[in-house]
Amino acid sequence: MKSMETVSYNSDTIVAIATPSGMGAIAIVRISGKSSLKTALKCFKPKKSGLSKENIQSHHLYFGDIISDGKVLDEVLLTYFKTPHSYTGEDSVEISCHGSEFIQQALLQTILEAGARLAGPGEFTLRAFLNGKMDLAQAEAVADLIASESKAAHRMAIRQMRGGFSEKIAELRKKLVNFASLLELELDFSEEDVEFANREQFFHLLEDIRQELIRLKESFKMGNVLKKGIPVAIIGKPNVGKSTLLNAILNEEKAIVSKFPGTTRDAIEDTIALEGYTFRFIDTAGLRDSTDVVENMGIEKTYDKINQASLILYVCDISSMNKGSMKEVLEDFKTFIHDKNKHFILVANKIDKMDEVPEHLKELLELETVFVSAKRKENIHLLAETLVNHVKNDSPGDGILVNNSRHFEALSHALESINEVQKGFEAGIPSDLIAIDLRQSLYYLGSITGEVTSDEILGNIFGKFCIGK
Amino acid sequence: MKSMETVSYNSDTIVAIATPSGMGAIAIVRISGKSSLKTALKCFKPKKSGLSKENIQSHHLYFGDIISDGKVLDEVLLTYFKTPHSYTGEDSVEISCHGSEFIQQALLQTILEAGARLAGPGEFTLRAFLNGKMDLAQAEAVADLIASESKAAHRMAIRQMRGGFSEKIAELRKKLVNFASLLELELDFSEEDVEFANREQFFHLLEDIRQELIRLKESFKMGNVLKKGIPVAIIGKPNVGKSTLLNAILNEEKAIVSKFPGTTRDAIEDTIALEGYTFRFIDTAGLRDSTDVVENMGIEKTYDKINQASLILYVCDISSMNKGSMKEVLEDFKTFIHDKNKHFILVANKIDKMDEVPEHLKELLELETVFVSAKRKENIHLLAETLVNHVKNDSPGDGILVNNSRHFEALSHALESINEVQKGFEAGIPSDLIAIDLRQSLYYLGSITGEVTSDEILGNIFGKFCIGK
Repeated sequence: MKSMETVSYNSDTIVAIATPSGMGAIAIVRISGKSSLKTALKCFKPKKSGLSKENIQSHHLYFGDIISDGKVLDEVLLTYFKTPHSYTGEDSVEISCHGSEFIQQALLQTILEAGARLAGPGEFTLRAFLNGKMDLAQAEAVADLIASESKAAHRMAIRQMRGGFSEKIAELRKKLVNFASLLELELDFSEEDVEFANREQFFHLLEDIRQELIRLKESFKMGNVLKKGIPVAIIGKPNVGKSTLLNAILNEEKAIVSKFPGTTRDAIEDTIALEGYTFRFIDTAGLRDSTDVVENMGIEKTYDKINQASLILYVCDISSMNKGSMKEVLEDFKTFIHDKNKHFILVANKIDKMDEVPEHLKELLELETVFVSAKRKENIHLLAETLVNHVKNDSPGDGILVNNSRHFEALSHALESINEVQKGFEAGIPSDLIAIDLRQSLYYLGSITGEVTSDEILGNIFGKFCIGK
Repeated sequence: MKSMETVSYNSDTIVAIATPSGMGAIAIVRISGKSSLKTALKCFKPKKSGLSKENIQSHHLYFGDIISDGKVLDEVLLTYFKTPHSYTGEDSVEISCHGSEFIQQALLQTILEAGARLAGPGEFTLRAFLNGKMDLAQAEAVADLIASESKAAHRMAIRQMRGGFSEKIAELRKKLVNFASLLELELDFSEEDVEFANREQFFHLLEDIRQELIRLKESFKMGNVLKKGIPVAIIGKPNVGKSTLLNAILNEEKAIVSKFPGTTRDAIEDTIALEGYTFRFIDTAGLRDSTDVVENMGIEKTYDKINQASLILYVCDISSMNKGSMKEVLEDFKTFIHDKNKHFILVANKIDKMDEVPEHLKELLELETVFVSAKRKENIHLLAETLVNHVKNDSPGDGILVNNSRHFEALSHALESINEVQKGFEAGIPSDLIAIDLRQSLYYLGSITGEVTSDEILGNIFGKFCIGK
């Protein structure tokens, strides 16, 4: 078991460009560490003279020049963040310069020459964690927040960054610690054979914790799906119009999004954002550019797609369907539908080729069926609504969702240990052995928020951050 | 003749993302206009309560939440810039948020919904100009500054942004205004036939101004070249190693640049930066990927390259050269070298195939010759030095360089008018007619700094800016 003491921390001065790379009106270079102010003032000449390390105000903007090689590099705004009131908790400086790539690089180089070193990925946030400005789950949420591309992913990340998940874990830990201390109190008095803790209450508490852990563990699937986009598979026999449907859906977004010009994101191929949820279409390479005439609905390939997906659109050509082919579709469909973790939607395509659903196909209405014409883009909005409704029904509102596989693993281990504790009690195993499993589950919960951690764990987590954060 | 009065100005509240597009640790959304603070405070909830429009301090950072649709969108830093102490001169607000693309767009949308409108390209800088925070030449330099990719281009832009060029123009204008008023004084007393201005002094002053205008006009070539990169042509007969030389030069940069990891720019194809100057190789498409065996030194093509270039590298294979082929090279070379605006450098390639320059080739030494082995990358650094030295010799040190074609045109027109004035005096044309040409030259000089301007001119200039600046 490792504790925070195994983590090394160095408050040397680090620097990085914090704004997105490329050209823009403004860019920000961020400096943090013991000597950050000294380092910055070496190359900053304020417009109003008399500014010094001693009289500079925190959280105030100073206008001045960056001097590099004796020449003015740029006119900038400098802000000093006095420890501990900064993102990292250390003394920090932010310099906002003109966003030419040349200036950004030259300013970075100037600060490096003044004595700072280039920050590693996530090093600012790592320092924030090590200085107690946030716990580990919150720090991880910062990376998620920056990477978030949909409203749903963003909402999860910001809730976690603001400590929602950490509070939940802390609550569970507190209950367990309570439990553990009572148990250990018994051990101290073991010769007298007293039971401080009411066994029945114990079992109840344990079961509560277990249920909570199971719930959190199970939320991972949804959490992960919301973070990465909800995987949707489009399946169906050849010639039913799968590729046309995909294109119609991808076009749908453009009709829905943003009221304001210039605020829409570039569409990423084969994902759409609907009402803040990202839907990710699985393995559509074969669908995109060609008609699907040549594609066979190979069973293996189809199962593969279904395995990856949360939502499955089973497409059929209703216009060419007779009672026999309908039976086939229904059988196909019923083979799949038993998986409770997936939603199957029957998309009855090519309604443009017929007037109404003929009597002999009415059985289709018993399934969740959306009637569309992909070619004429009819009813695509109904399909979009259906997709969104399925996700909304699965989302636990404002509840806590686990969306990080590290947390998922820690929760799984904690649950295993709790199961061991439970079994131990049932088998009448001595309290001192039970206490070990209890401590183990505390350790795993603590690893989520970083109360126990190591350089290796931190390296893994922060190595995935971008530089400048 | 148009004056500032024809320019429309509206201080409604505008908003834009000011940092480069994409994902980063931090992004900045910038708001400007009469209601910018009111607009921003509609969606900003400070951590410390009690903040209001009345007690907010200028140039101070406030930590708080952005509330969008009743939910926390992000934790941000907000800065208020009280008029006139802002970039635009208006009341302005900058919000620095987490740099996820989702947050940037959502924050922008939130501010738009709070009543701002999306800023047009360069609209912040346009307002800075209209509010007298900078003149037109300085505003144009802001765009150049952001676009600058080399040290030389950057230095020109920052000098111009800080008013160097504007001062020069103001100085010329002042002299001319002086001159014009004396002339007009004479007109007022024309019936008495007095001459207030000493004619000889007049002619001297006029000639001074003319020379200065000529110098500025001529500096445009260098200024433009420094801004866009110095055009270099590589010419020579087939098989002399032109493509190998190009690759060797392009590799040279990698050996020279940046001491620090992570600070080098991505190399742009077929340009190199040496000592802060960008060299741009002309029409190397035929050289890059193939050996140049098939390429004939077609005279037309060669002249075309030479026309575009400031520096010409004439490559020959010295190892296979006899007295006869040397004569050919010398003759070729001498045909070209008469153009005084271009520098010709003879590159004697393939020195790896011989020990020393044989006696019969010594005549080559009379030219500016660099002996290299492109294949073995020998002496490429000497060639690089030669390139840089030529540019350094042409650069007028810290003198003013014109680098903007709008300025070049205005200077040309101003010069034409001055020539007319001079001719007029010589021909004894009445002073009132001369005064018209004088006013015309004042107009053209004034158009550079924007003392006279129009919506159309401003639209042309600021339309080329990026949004957010």
